[in-house]
Amino acid sequence: MAVSARNQLKGVVLTLVKDNVMAEVSVDVGGGNTIVAVITRQSAETLNLKPGDDVTAVIKATEVMVAKE
Amino acid sequence: MAVSARNQLKGVVLTLVKDNVMAEVSVDVGGGNTIVAVITRQSAETLNLKPGDDVTAVIKATEVMVAKE
Amino acid sequence: MAVSARNQLKGVVLTLVKDNVMAEVSVDVGGGNTIVAVITRQSAETLNLKPGDDVTAVIKATEVMVAKE
Amino acid sequence: MAVSARNQLKGVVLTLVKDNVMAEVSVDVGGGNTIVAVITRQSAETLNLKPGDDVTAVIKATEVMVAKE
Amino acid sequence: MAVSARNQLKGVVLTLVKDNVMAEVSVDVGGGNTIVAVITRQSAETLNLKPGDDVTAVIKATEVMVAKE
Amino acid sequence: MAVSARNQLKGVVLTLVKDNVMAEVSVDVGGGNTIVAVITRQSAETLNLKPGDDVTAVIKATEVMVAKE
Repeated sequence: MAVSARNQLKGVVLTLVKDNVMAEVSVDVGGGNTIVAVITRQSAETLNLKPGDDVTAVIKATEVMVAKE
Repeated sequence: MAVSARNQLKGVVLTLVKDNVMAEVSVDVGGGNTIVAVITRQSAETLNLKPGDDVTAVIKATEVMVAKE
Repeated sequence: MAVSARNQLKGVVLTLVKDNVMAEVSVDVGGGNTIVAVITRQSAETLNLKPGDDVTAVIKATEVMVAKE
Repeated sequence: MAVSARNQLKGVVLTLVKDNVMAEVSVDVGGGNTIVAVITRQSAETLNLKPGDDVTAVIKATEVMVAKE
Repeated sequence: MAVSARNQLKGVVLTLVKDNVMAEVSVDVGGGNTIVAVITRQSAETLNLKPGDDVTAVIKATEVMVAKE
Repeated sequence: MAVSARNQLKGVVLTLVKDNVMAEVSVDVGGGNTIVAVITRQSAETLNLKPGDDVTAVIKATEVMVAKE
């Protein structure tokens, strides 16, 4: 299944922190970049996410901003 | 000024496409990854964005999803 | 590939309107509900979206609000 | 009051889970579809949300993605 | 109807710019602040938005970032 | 550094509530308006946010809706 989200960066899960409702997942996407995702705890458990997993960080283009010096 | 957005990836503007209201900016963030941002045309003009500019792609962690095979 | 987005509603594309940068897609998801998505024109073309296509509307739970009378 | 959000699906609250800051609400919107919303705990309490309530799930069109096989 | 979105600022429409798909609306919310919204053209037309209208800018708390010097 | 986000409202932190993953920050932006932001706890700690701080609430225009009576 192909998703319309323009940004799909392959990486590896580094860390996972959970509350009752939310979970924070950090993903090493290469090039020295880490992407942090906040998803529901339920999603983290359904995907059985754990450090070392091969995953893809998915981001809709309308959610990205640009900053310039 | 430091922004709370957890994801701030340095890169270089590759392309820029504009409508009356919106603009699409693609940014090479290294590691073989390109990030596409959709911002307003007004923002693109205020920042005077053009190919070759050094910029930072900024993404709030709550906007990032995770996919797994 | 399984995505963390909690809301994934199967449906059929009804209409498609395009600008240079953005495209609007309406999807009949059953139960008398239509979901409207605004994605990039490039995504609509990469997925080759057209009326009648079987698709899935995907929505991150953090993007959903609740209203009550 | 009419809100610009294009997606407004009527339904019934199924479940509610709370943390200090966030709350997760699932809403049966008919047609076999359930929509999960993550809102603040404060909003859930201000609206006095509880299972069985008639509510509307509200989603801005720019937040919706489309996936295709 | 009460919406869970925590941020609801009353104001007056200043300007309106339209493409085929999107529209940009600026709203004077008092205190010297202007809020810019990008919504679909269809929503702008359904609400019959025009300069001088009394409106409310609505923003989900999860979409707000904080910056500090 | 200038960010493309069209909405940047200066204000003062009023309150701060934390979970393990998320934090809720309310900011008085003048004109009788308070903006509530939900960011990660880690961001709140990195910025060392506390009541009385001078901050800026930052909101991408695509995240703002408009409501009309």
